[in-house]
Amino acid sequence: MSSRNFRLGLIQLLVGHNKSENVKRALNLIKTAKTNGCQVVALPECFNSPYGTKYFSEYAENVPNGSTCQNLSKAAKENNIYLIGGSIPEIDGGKLYNTCTAWGPSGELLAQHRKVHLFDIDIPGKITFKESETLSAGSNFTFFDTPFCTVGLGICYDLRFETMARIYQKKGCQLLIYPGAFNMTTGPLHWELLLRARATDNQLFMAGVSPARVENADYVAWGHSTVVDPWGKVLAKAEFDEEIVYADIDLTALEEVRKSIPISVQSRDDIYEVKMLTK
Amino acid sequence: MSSRNFRLGLIQLLVGHNKSENVKRALNLIKTAKTNGCQVVALPECFNSPYGTKYFSEYAENVPNGSTCQNLSKAAKENNIYLIGGSIPEIDGGKLYNTCTAWGPSGELLAQHRKVHLFDIDIPGKITFKESETLSAGSNFTFFDTPFCTVGLGICYDLRFETMARIYQKKGCQLLIYPGAFNMTTGPLHWELLLRARATDNQLFMAGVSPARVENADYVAWGHSTVVDPWGKVLAKAEFDEEIVYADIDLTALEEVRKSIPISVQSRDDIYEVKMLTK
Repeated sequence: MSSRNFRLGLIQLLVGHNKSENVKRALNLIKTAKTNGCQVVALPECFNSPYGTKYFSEYAENVPNGSTCQNLSKAAKENNIYLIGGSIPEIDGGKLYNTCTAWGPSGELLAQHRKVHLFDIDIPGKITFKESETLSAGSNFTFFDTPFCTVGLGICYDLRFETMARIYQKKGCQLLIYPGAFNMTTGPLHWELLLRARATDNQLFMAGVSPARVENADYVAWGHSTVVDPWGKVLAKAEFDEEIVYADIDLTALEEVRKSIPISVQSRDDIYEVKMLTK
Repeated sequence: MSSRNFRLGLIQLLVGHNKSENVKRALNLIKTAKTNGCQVVALPECFNSPYGTKYFSEYAENVPNGSTCQNLSKAAKENNIYLIGGSIPEIDGGKLYNTCTAWGPSGELLAQHRKVHLFDIDIPGKITFKESETLSAGSNFTFFDTPFCTVGLGICYDLRFETMARIYQKKGCQLLIYPGAFNMTTGPLHWELLLRARATDNQLFMAGVSPARVENADYVAWGHSTVVDPWGKVLAKAEFDEEIVYADIDLTALEEVRKSIPISVQSRDDIYEVKMLTK
């Protein structure tokens, strides 16, 4: 298998109230994904804690020195994989963040992404949620290299902002991974649509990793962890129970679509501009 | 009916080789749309000519003084409607453009949009097309006011470039109309996906207006003229035969989604920027 091909595994984890149990389930499924041939494995958003502003403080840990991160580092090393650690509530200097970490096969921390766009919505009669009640937002784009390709990271609501994905594409990312817990209102409306749109517009692979659905939870996740190819086609997707979604990524598909429909080079950069602002 | 509500009609016109016959069919269907309550009517891309680089020169006219445009002006006035004249091959100073015009109820020219992104693609074994063999590209964003809302214009391949739609949204457009002839390869892959994505990301109404399908044509159009609401839901769509697609637009839906999922104000304009470049 050349470095243009790899197997990606998305762990649609069942997340409950027992933190060490959540982490233990994740570690077991990471091992299963490795056994089934994955070189890159990703966990869902908020995988060691129930999702809800009232839980974040209690479940928060230091990144990268807390117990959850140390377990991820060890799992990446033991399984000799690239591991995208979904997200966990992070505590740093008295502030809380929704944070994704990525780990290399030597157990090294490759990247740390703090959710940039906080999830504050209010759909009357459907769902109201305000992450900004307790969380602070990150302000950085996060991407890292693997032997296969450059990977960009976003978390859930970040997916709604197409400019972020566009900037990752301009930076050379070929796979974007968004751990994300859409809900029973926004999930059916927008989850697959947005994943397919980002893949199509940027001609890259997109992965969205959701927790499994827990019907009686405070926040009911949509599930449907999904991998989309650079043509915008769904390569693999879950329903809503706990499972691992497997996708064989062939990066030649990316070169094929970029050659066939060459929108990257046809972009009219003489009349509009998309750019990252440096701080 | 308040000015927050209006009926939009998309004419999925059957386009053949006889130019005056094409225009006559269009005029008849415009009248039908008016009879059925439309205040805004739109025609498809390349509605007075077969679609193909070898035809553009032969069918091209002056804008706005050519016969096709003058017929559109008259139709807008006679029917007391806002008329988006799909597109026609335009000749100006020895150059050819793919040009959309918009007309007000007094027969006045409101806007003229020359396709900004030329359609040059090569999908091996499927479709190869190179508009740039004969056409020149426009370099302007085009939008105009109606009593209902501000309308932005794109043509077909312009739809693939999300930055253009984003700029229209920033300029206050609430409805974007893209006359467009996707084909039997890119149509099923991307037509509805892109319309829904632009509507969802920008929280506005999107209309894509295709010609009807002619199976033995040089270029076989996908059809499926579609209106999408600001939630990303398909309001109305055609199949592939000649027909008029009707959609009752209620602009309060736009305010509702923008209040519920306030991504416009949550955009992180401190870390990224999308802007129009002035010439």
